[in-house]
Amino acid sequence: MSATDPQRITLIGLGTIGMSMAALHLSRENVVVDIFDTRPNFDQYVLNTLPNFLSQDSASADSKPQPSTSSVALLIASGRLHIHTSLETACASATIVQEQGPENLEFKQSLWAQVEALAPLPAHFWTSTSGIAASAQQQKMDNKTRLLVVHPFNPPHIMPLLEIVPSPDTSPERVEFAREYFSIPGSKHRPVVLQKEIPGFVGNRLAFALLREACYLVQEDVVSAKDLDTILMASLGPRWAGNGVFESYQQGGGEGGIRAFLDKLGGTMQAVWDNLGKVNVLGDEETNWKEKVISQVNEAYGALTPGQVREKEERLKDFVETQTKKYGHDSIPEA
Amino acid sequence: MSATDPQRITLIGLGTIGMSMAALHLSRENVVVDIFDTRPNFDQYVLNTLPNFLSQDSASADSKPQPSTSSVALLIASGRLHIHTSLETACASATIVQEQGPENLEFKQSLWAQVEALAPLPAHFWTSTSGIAASAQQQKMDNKTRLLVVHPFNPPHIMPLLEIVPSPDTSPERVEFAREYFSIPGSKHRPVVLQKEIPGFVGNRLAFALLREACYLVQEDVVSAKDLDTILMASLGPRWAGNGVFESYQQGGGEGGIRAFLDKLGGTMQAVWDNLGKVNVLGDEETNWKEKVISQVNEAYGALTPGQVREKEERLKDFVETQTKKYGHDSIPEA
Repeated sequence: MSATDPQRITLIGLGTIGMSMAALHLSRENVVVDIFDTRPNFDQYVLNTLPNFLSQDSASADSKPQPSTSSVALLIASGRLHIHTSLETACASATIVQEQGPENLEFKQSLWAQVEALAPLPAHFWTSTSGIAASAQQQKMDNKTRLLVVHPFNPPHIMPLLEIVPSPDTSPERVEFAREYFSIPGSKHRPVVLQKEIPGFVGNRLAFALLREACYLVQEDVVSAKDLDTILMASLGPRWAGNGVFESYQQGGGEGGIRAFLDKLGGTMQAVWDNLGKVNVLGDEETNWKEKVISQVNEAYGALTPGQVREKEERLKDFVETQTKKYGHDSIPEA
Repeated sequence: MSATDPQRITLIGLGTIGMSMAALHLSRENVVVDIFDTRPNFDQYVLNTLPNFLSQDSASADSKPQPSTSSVALLIASGRLHIHTSLETACASATIVQEQGPENLEFKQSLWAQVEALAPLPAHFWTSTSGIAASAQQQKMDNKTRLLVVHPFNPPHIMPLLEIVPSPDTSPERVEFAREYFSIPGSKHRPVVLQKEIPGFVGNRLAFALLREACYLVQEDVVSAKDLDTILMASLGPRWAGNGVFESYQQGGGEGGIRAFLDKLGGTMQAVWDNLGKVNVLGDEETNWKEKVISQVNEAYGALTPGQVREKEERLKDFVETQTKKYGHDSIPEA
């Protein structure tokens, strides 16, 4: 079965990421979505919450009436969306099962053992975890070739990246199926397959490396949290929205490319690398930065209102659309 | 004198950054620019090279005829631009002297001692260095209150950020003058004043922290250089083009803000921080990554042609213009 064929996707865990993921899958016309969650009044929660994600998924949200609970009712009536309160019925017809449950190893190990017993034999198993490798989650499964990580960036219905991270046991065909699913022509999503499991995968490792230094610079009073954000938005953000870090330094080195860049800036770079901040998020002594960072961030931005969150997601969508429309990221990436 | 009054700026060192900086200053109608460089045939070099930067500085470059040597000739004829082959005449009438010379401490110390003897007493002294603090450069000056770092990001005529980094001796009035100069209404530039000198300042420290991890991940075969670039462009680039790192995690924590984010992701984050890559750019043993990174980058991108560089700068301009037009970054930042 090809990933471009009609699919029936079971989503387990409908928190913020799950809802956004549901909107992503529902944007594909040949996909039926089954959703399962253990929270009370799940039906009503879906009717209230899902419209927020569906509206943002439209490229022309500004000019259209906002989707309401009636649009969800329509998806249900037309058989595109099924709400389940039993894992058994949710998984019964799945070609893909994707979980966005708690980040807890025991929960996930137990879940996949149950899902394996409930879902049809060919079904693909995807976990949206940001931190627990497939090789750890699969321990209680009989067939370990079916599970892989599909790590989205928040919010997945807008953010193009999906990190596909197989365990050493995952079958190559299932990796390729997931890559193909998110690469269909017209998709703004850009799946990337990692060659090895590693804590934090790649995107968050890069983000956390930068965040650690950011926290250190605030702790050391070099710059305020808000000014640091301005610096990032006024330089590296737009640079990396248009070109990757390696491509940027290939350009930065002029005719000699990245080799010339590393030669020329090597002294400054090593000086920086030798004294990058070593703040820790856990433990006592090295966490003094936390209260300073948290209070400066709260002072700068306050608690974000739903309207502000919506505005931030619109910004993100603007930049993603500039990428996809102008720079050809809307076709199938090279394998 | 206010920074919005007419200024006469002497630029010393007209390499790529210097040319771009000249274009930045020439975009302001009440600024006269004097340029000085020791390279042979400096006049002809300016006539050949500066038009490339002037054309890119126009927001509507697509619809206008490309500036040619005649536009530079016009700037000269109208008295907006003066080409000098003597430091003495270049500095004689300056209200601001800005250097983009070699990144060499002795050169800069010697230069500022000379400039101090040549320029009018009120003139402001700015260094575009990316690595040598004002407190080191000022050692041979009589009056150490006049010099500060104005660190641009490449290319400064497009990139909004200017890091203003005073030495402990720089007068606060001169810091405020520089901040005000780059903050005039309508400017797309966003100056940020750092509170302390630190190697690499802030922007490059953040970039180099991420780059170090990027090199490590390529070295470890987790991901190719090109796929890593795709990951960055498909996630963190557009996120940080619209929102800073702290603001993003304030959002990522939901109602609990960045505190909830640090609580929830603390385990994964610490695991990542504990094993971030420690590659070095200098020294023997830990530089094995260099040839692998360089060869993958060369294979992915090749040597960039002038046309490709121009295209990349157009991308950058697109993202910067989306920021400035839609999100109100075109007004004077808060002090």
